[in-house]
Amino acid sequence: MSTTAEIPESQESQIKLLNRVVEELNKKYEGIFSAETIERYVFESYTALARTAKIRTHLPLLAEHFATDRLEALRHAGDEIKDSLPQVLFVCTRNVGRSQIASALLKHYAGGEVHVRSAGILPDAEVHPVVLDVLAERGIDIGKAYPKPLTDDVVRASDYVVNLGCDGAYPMYPGKHYLDWDLMDPGDESPERVRAVVDEIDVHIRELWAEMSK
Amino acid sequence: MSTTAEIPESQESQIKLLNRVVEELNKKYEGIFSAETIERYVFESYTALARTAKIRTHLPLLAEHFATDRLEALRHAGDEIKDSLPQVLFVCTRNVGRSQIASALLKHYAGGEVHVRSAGILPDAEVHPVVLDVLAERGIDIGKAYPKPLTDDVVRASDYVVNLGCDGAYPMYPGKHYLDWDLMDPGDESPERVRAVVDEIDVHIRELWAEMSK
Repeated sequence: MSTTAEIPESQESQIKLLNRVVEELNKKYEGIFSAETIERYVFESYTALARTAKIRTHLPLLAEHFATDRLEALRHAGDEIKDSLPQVLFVCTRNVGRSQIASALLKHYAGGEVHVRSAGILPDAEVHPVVLDVLAERGIDIGKAYPKPLTDDVVRASDYVVNLGCDGAYPMYPGKHYLDWDLMDPGDESPERVRAVVDEIDVHIRELWAEMSK
Repeated sequence: MSTTAEIPESQESQIKLLNRVVEELNKKYEGIFSAETIERYVFESYTALARTAKIRTHLPLLAEHFATDRLEALRHAGDEIKDSLPQVLFVCTRNVGRSQIASALLKHYAGGEVHVRSAGILPDAEVHPVVLDVLAERGIDIGKAYPKPLTDDVVRASDYVVNLGCDGAYPMYPGKHYLDWDLMDPGDESPERVRAVVDEIDVHIRELWAEMSK
């Protein structure tokens, strides 16, 4: 009926790793963020990813990456960094297809000249394998990309927030460009269909990048 | 093709309301939490709920409630409150059925003697109407209950964390009771089926409450 769960050893070692990440980020952000904020960011990022992640082995590493990126976003939004890179955020529902494709393509065109992020309303477990394959065909490797939920900090940091058919809402702050891209449905997610979606997103990305480079 | 979204007036007024909530919570938690932590909690709680909420009118109010409850959880976990109420957290996948039923029943039996919370891995838009009806048949009104994502703070605060068939993972900290309840599937969510699920959860809740009251 009711069973009491033991705490697995892997869980204990993950918590230990996260505490180490907190220590390191405390050094990195000394004088910028309080220890309280950093601790919250690391553990809330971990919990948010743990909810939907399929493979749990790399969770502390992903949580470190997610928390650091969010802290960087917060720092940027707080105006501490002045003449920094423009920031673009792509939002879709699961953060495993369209927003990952858009993010990969903009990084591809803009190189290191733009800070690109993506997020999902209800993130799925992993980036769609067909998406990885189709992007690889074009010489684009999205490497360690992982699905993550949309957070306030990354919206605040962004100069452009692009909605790629996301089924949900997010905060809208003045002084940003909010764009809606009306895209075709990835449908059956066959390679043909995904290639067509990538082509369609590619047109939008070139247009956006041209506008941003003016 | 690409359309630029205007910021709706309703959005501007929601942000204003949230800033007012931040001010109020700053007064409430002076000397306990930094202004930075409070601001982050309010806006991240808002963004987390906005992702999946169906009706957006009450979002600032729900965000105030969610952020306050999370800050209370954090305060409790931080040991600032000593001889306080035991805290129980129910977790299911969507936080619209089983975890809401369990939460309502424990509140019903325990009155004000337990702090009860519920959360979901991927929260849905609203508590299932059939659940509200079936609980109302038993004289239980869950009032302003709303689906919300699982966060680290509420896990930390809890003495008991009960998994009601949640499809996902959460952090496990030493010194807590982690329980797994193997429940029937709500299936077609007909009133009959939901009544059976409520009956089944009821048995578990009475058992838990008996254990907690020892």
